[in-house]
Amino acid sequence: MTSLRPADPAFLDALAARLPADSLRPAEERHLEEPRARSRGQAAAVALPRSVGEVAEVVRAAHAAHVGVVPYGGGTGLVGGQVMPDGPAPILLSLERMRAIREVFPDENVLLAEAGVTLADVQAAAHAADRLFPLSLASEGTARIGGNLSTNAGGVNVLRYGNARDLCLGLEAVLPTGEIWHGLTRLRKDNTGYDLRNLLIGAEGTLGVITAAALKLSPIPRHVGTALFSVESPAAAIQLLALAREAVAEGVSAFELIHRQGLDFLAETLPDLRQPFDETPEWCVLIDLGLGAGQAPEEVLTDLFGRALDAGISRDGVIAQSEAQRQALWSVREFIPEANRRIGSVSSHDISVPISRIPAFISAGWAAMSRLDSSLRINCFGHLGDGNLHYNVFPAKGRKRADYDALRGDVKRIIHDLVADYGGSISAEHGIGRFKVDDLERYGDPVKLAAMRAIKQALDPHGIMNPGAVLASA
Amino acid sequence: MTSLRPADPAFLDALAARLPADSLRPAEERHLEEPRARSRGQAAAVALPRSVGEVAEVVRAAHAAHVGVVPYGGGTGLVGGQVMPDGPAPILLSLERMRAIREVFPDENVLLAEAGVTLADVQAAAHAADRLFPLSLASEGTARIGGNLSTNAGGVNVLRYGNARDLCLGLEAVLPTGEIWHGLTRLRKDNTGYDLRNLLIGAEGTLGVITAAALKLSPIPRHVGTALFSVESPAAAIQLLALAREAVAEGVSAFELIHRQGLDFLAETLPDLRQPFDETPEWCVLIDLGLGAGQAPEEVLTDLFGRALDAGISRDGVIAQSEAQRQALWSVREFIPEANRRIGSVSSHDISVPISRIPAFISAGWAAMSRLDSSLRINCFGHLGDGNLHYNVFPAKGRKRADYDALRGDVKRIIHDLVADYGGSISAEHGIGRFKVDDLERYGDPVKLAAMRAIKQALDPHGIMNPGAVLASA
Repeated sequence: MTSLRPADPAFLDALAARLPADSLRPAEERHLEEPRARSRGQAAAVALPRSVGEVAEVVRAAHAAHVGVVPYGGGTGLVGGQVMPDGPAPILLSLERMRAIREVFPDENVLLAEAGVTLADVQAAAHAADRLFPLSLASEGTARIGGNLSTNAGGVNVLRYGNARDLCLGLEAVLPTGEIWHGLTRLRKDNTGYDLRNLLIGAEGTLGVITAAALKLSPIPRHVGTALFSVESPAAAIQLLALAREAVAEGVSAFELIHRQGLDFLAETLPDLRQPFDETPEWCVLIDLGLGAGQAPEEVLTDLFGRALDAGISRDGVIAQSEAQRQALWSVREFIPEANRRIGSVSSHDISVPISRIPAFISAGWAAMSRLDSSLRINCFGHLGDGNLHYNVFPAKGRKRADYDALRGDVKRIIHDLVADYGGSISAEHGIGRFKVDDLERYGDPVKLAAMRAIKQALDPHGIMNPGAVLASA
Repeated sequence: MTSLRPADPAFLDALAARLPADSLRPAEERHLEEPRARSRGQAAAVALPRSVGEVAEVVRAAHAAHVGVVPYGGGTGLVGGQVMPDGPAPILLSLERMRAIREVFPDENVLLAEAGVTLADVQAAAHAADRLFPLSLASEGTARIGGNLSTNAGGVNVLRYGNARDLCLGLEAVLPTGEIWHGLTRLRKDNTGYDLRNLLIGAEGTLGVITAAALKLSPIPRHVGTALFSVESPAAAIQLLALAREAVAEGVSAFELIHRQGLDFLAETLPDLRQPFDETPEWCVLIDLGLGAGQAPEEVLTDLFGRALDAGISRDGVIAQSEAQRQALWSVREFIPEANRRIGSVSSHDISVPISRIPAFISAGWAAMSRLDSSLRINCFGHLGDGNLHYNVFPAKGRKRADYDALRGDVKRIIHDLVADYGGSISAEHGIGRFKVDDLERYGDPVKLAAMRAIKQALDPHGIMNPGAVLASA
């Protein structure tokens, strides 16, 4: 890979001359911040294109001049993919002006959105056409769909509807040479060559810039229902999931594991939030159903609870009887990350392991952490149906994150080593960005890493696209 | 790309010395045949490895010696991907000895199969664990799962469960340099780098050899039901699909469009097969439901028919009342390809267009064919829910395929041009193989083609993997 050059005034002037008047500006503070303040970006300028043609103009110029380009969506990524802290000053390429819903095809269950549309606006446009766009995650009001696709975002409905990549039929994108790939098809079957779409999805802007996407919609489920059931153990939670899926298959939209530590953190930091159980169980799961004709969620959930009780899987349960109760149950799950933030973790891990190994993994994690420092508290929760746990380690009550600075590296290393031992992933949904580049080098398959480098070199010979993200710069 | 050398005796002797005794043999007739006898392969030998290590040995030797490797699964592909008719004699690499089901994880809905397991055996292994492997297609008794993945096979359940790529979580594969990628994870979320899995899936053996796969299973639907409804038009069929999905969402497992020409061909060639309607409608659809707790398929289908009747979508319907009736309705759909074979098509096209454009496409196709030669008969049928039509053109009654030899090129060109005009795909499920390489050059996006060539060169610098398939050899 050739070495990059900074975007100097001569480059910026020449680029500005090829774009409409206000397309190139100094980067604003919001473009350089990192959500958890763990890093700070730098950029010679921010480009604000209004069309794929203007995006291509920027990338073409950067390719010719060997200048780095950092694509920028909503800025909500948690691994530093949108923030380049050092190296030759790049151009930040923000998609914020490309926010048209180009067209909706309810008959096809397809929506065409530009990369800068927020996830919430995509959801709203689908809803207006009486359809569902099921990708759903905490930052959906700010995150933009281009970023969601570039990072293959996950969230709470992956169990039923898949990750972002599973919700995309076609892409329009600018490749690192500045050429436009017109791949915005709405086809559900198209076996004409290599899967460039899935190569760009999850590449975190290192192989090109997504400018628009054809997104898959679904029918809105006729009947929805939600319950919170205690479970005797993580293994019991897995059995409960199997029972639920035997009954209604894809009708299980979300299945979230919650540990009592999460409920205790809620009580500690958000005391006004009503606790769901009179007696807080060690483990519980939130089950969300979206059902069809002839199915009554309350009945299905009541029947499921009966079976779970008989099988010794669960002892206590709350089944929502109204939309308000449904929202209240969901609040329990949704406020856990906020409670975590208020406590302040020593180290957080977005990991996955094969579903059947979750119980053993959780036990081994506890044992390892208590060997390291028995005062540590663990809040392990998340998308059980996907094998994706947010495994977060916290200070003892009354102590602070900073008190454990010396331990942080060990905590992370021990958890990640354990994940590797269990055949898991050190980044289930957040991606690699810049913060996990070293982890990928350590835990990634070397043959896959070599193939990734070869592909990067082939498509981006000057290494201009999101330098230093995913793969270490040469 | 460097030029290839034939697998000469010196190469074969050296390779044989590194493999168990009977690993290298002369290719048999079955390895060189093409299912429709449109081509005939050649090979210096067939390699029959028993393990991924032996596959790697073969590929490593071929890479070093610049010898072509043609991966061979069940030999059922319809586009010549498994058959290399000319060029320096390659090694045929058959996965037929790698047919272990390595492990089944019912709790995870995952099964690990080696590439040489037939699709039917994968289905049976899933069934034995009380799970469903939903990929289903005509050649499932012979086709092997490695080939299904390499070609991203489709079939009748794509509407609900997706293509082969959607049913795969991880791969073990040998890359063109002979290195083994250990990517056989069972994870549903893993955002650690580029999507090498989806790059290999659908690459038709040109980027490596899949040796094993982690496959996604599903719960077996509790209740199944099938119906055949007349529809007033293709547009009415699309409306019916929307009504069905509004009622039961993913519960619609298959939705197949059938034209009266197909039923007439059945009557002509398979007169013993009972015709489903007293009065054959112009169009009908086969609907297959797989439902959950609380749902009765006959009731859902009866209700659906009532709505369709009220909306002027359908006038006549048959709802299966027993498993035998269900099989009989499915036979109607499944024997159409056999009837087509007996009639003998002038030209067949495996195409897709955006679902909402199907009605206009069908009209335009008819108009264009009748302008070309008004004696042509068209049997247009297939996976309506996926926008995937088998658009096959036949001789007039009493005439033969050979009578239209002069027209064949025009028919194909006109249909493919029309598909391109409608934003469709010239290969919806069969792939490119060798027969459609020129079509891909003509209709493919040039930027995507250039990216494909760059990726091929990066991963397979000597061009040894399945030479001449997908991309024209240099």
